[in-house]
Amino acid sequence: MYRFICSKWFFSGVSLTVGVGVGASLRTADTGESHGLLSRVPVIPIPSVDAATDIVPYQGGGGQMGGNRSTAVMKYGFPSLANIKTRESYVTSYDPRNRTAAWVIEHLTPQTLTGTSDRKFCDFKEDDSVHMYHRSTNADYKGSGFDRGHLAAAGNHKWNQKAMDDTFYLSNVSPQHPQMNQKGWNKLEQYSRSLTKQYLNVFVCTGPLYLPRQEADGKMYVRYQVIGRNHVSVPTHFFKVLILEKPRGEVELRPYVMPNVPVDENVALERFLVPIESIERASGLLFVPNIMKRTSSILAVTAGPGK
Amino acid sequence: MYRFICSKWFFSGVSLTVGVGVGASLRTADTGESHGLLSRVPVIPIPSVDAATDIVPYQGGGGQMGGNRSTAVMKYGFPSLANIKTRESYVTSYDPRNRTAAWVIEHLTPQTLTGTSDRKFCDFKEDDSVHMYHRSTNADYKGSGFDRGHLAAAGNHKWNQKAMDDTFYLSNVSPQHPQMNQKGWNKLEQYSRSLTKQYLNVFVCTGPLYLPRQEADGKMYVRYQVIGRNHVSVPTHFFKVLILEKPRGEVELRPYVMPNVPVDENVALERFLVPIESIERASGLLFVPNIMKRTSSILAVTAGPGK
Repeated sequence: MYRFICSKWFFSGVSLTVGVGVGASLRTADTGESHGLLSRVPVIPIPSVDAATDIVPYQGGGGQMGGNRSTAVMKYGFPSLANIKTRESYVTSYDPRNRTAAWVIEHLTPQTLTGTSDRKFCDFKEDDSVHMYHRSTNADYKGSGFDRGHLAAAGNHKWNQKAMDDTFYLSNVSPQHPQMNQKGWNKLEQYSRSLTKQYLNVFVCTGPLYLPRQEADGKMYVRYQVIGRNHVSVPTHFFKVLILEKPRGEVELRPYVMPNVPVDENVALERFLVPIESIERASGLLFVPNIMKRTSSILAVTAGPGK
Repeated sequence: MYRFICSKWFFSGVSLTVGVGVGASLRTADTGESHGLLSRVPVIPIPSVDAATDIVPYQGGGGQMGGNRSTAVMKYGFPSLANIKTRESYVTSYDPRNRTAAWVIEHLTPQTLTGTSDRKFCDFKEDDSVHMYHRSTNADYKGSGFDRGHLAAAGNHKWNQKAMDDTFYLSNVSPQHPQMNQKGWNKLEQYSRSLTKQYLNVFVCTGPLYLPRQEADGKMYVRYQVIGRNHVSVPTHFFKVLILEKPRGEVELRPYVMPNVPVDENVALERFLVPIESIERASGLLFVPNIMKRTSSILAVTAGPGK
């Protein structure tokens, strides 16, 4: 049912100990014949555990769409409950050990994409709601060779300058390879925005991954760089889960994983599609159980076309 | 003020970018002249952020000391609020990405150490309150070469069989090197128990660390093995923070970090003492702000004797 491109990187799991396509291999690999773009997501039985639903959100900032937007963005719940903050343009869970977000959720509509906000008025800034021991700074990134890569993209929030400003908190930023951030990843962000034309609502959940791979001794290791005096983690990969709402309440799920290496914009985005279960296992987060509470119809895009 | 043994492993931090003593280097390093065993912990200003204090604990199981004990154990707050569970013998925060606890807190008194409970009646068991995607299993450990190392030690909870049983949940277990678990680490556990004779109350907080070190390219990397089909993380180090209460309300803090490599029981435990700030930075947790709310007198044991 699922299609994978095997590579050096691994997801965990009993039924899914498989690789996900990464940059270099992706560009040369051929996925073989097509299995169609859409396949029904397996209904995963969750014996006794629910994903996170109840929160007492931190109400940060004001702004014209503030209150309503944080309610809207939580429609399909949150993938975890740790260190949650509500900002003008997103809700996020901070990972104080890795000095970056665990995930960031945004709600995109044609309205959020339109406006006069301009990133020339924005500067990357420390998040002083994070303890100084666990906060990243601009100095950490300087000279590291990595971009300050937005998780909630600035370009998604032109509707309000405060909303755009809030995407410049360094807690919404991870070290990204410049030729990924500005190329393949940027393409995925643009694609996310384009879907607001087709779908009633577009929810975007973005976050880092730290995937293991097999080393010469045959054992599996997680290995990632840390930068700056605050040891900001450089994720090996990033996920972006698109939760797309159709007019009749159907939900379509597009889960992507992109490696934090140069990724050309010529690579078809379908090559980065993975089963949502792979992201749920690798990230320690849960998406499907919450979504299942809100819809009886969920379609998961799990395989790219075989070309 | 603080004494360190520099090594390959690093803590982050502006003022504390220093190594902590690890196994092999420890045994040969000499710390120089003594600065005394006790030095006053610096009062760290916390500009706008408090450590976690309010929780809605999951009430697991019953038992004779159940309700009171979970209240007692939270006296000095918790170092984080993510995925908290209250068990008979400890309170814990689970890290679903690494498939082990982020921390476990116990409250030891002469009473908890005494009783007829026996580990021969205990078996390591999966924690089915953790989602199956994020749970470790006995099979993950089998043939890995690592012990199933208790975080809350079984020997701390002889007072009640259920309390001891609960320490056998695999969510209270991390992969530990056998010659660390059974030697140096065991010595630290025994020492923690011995302190109940000297102090009114002994709170023990234990957890894993994933510390970076410099590699050949001069950059810093976090690298750790993962074992089994569920990719259970093998921490590079473990911390144990002893919060020791004196009769007049004074609190003494003993923060230890031990590497997950063979550690002989002949190495003096003082060699593993580190500043609490190092653990707070590296773990993403906070201890001192909560403790400061409960006492006006905190003494931190931060340096071993220079012999």
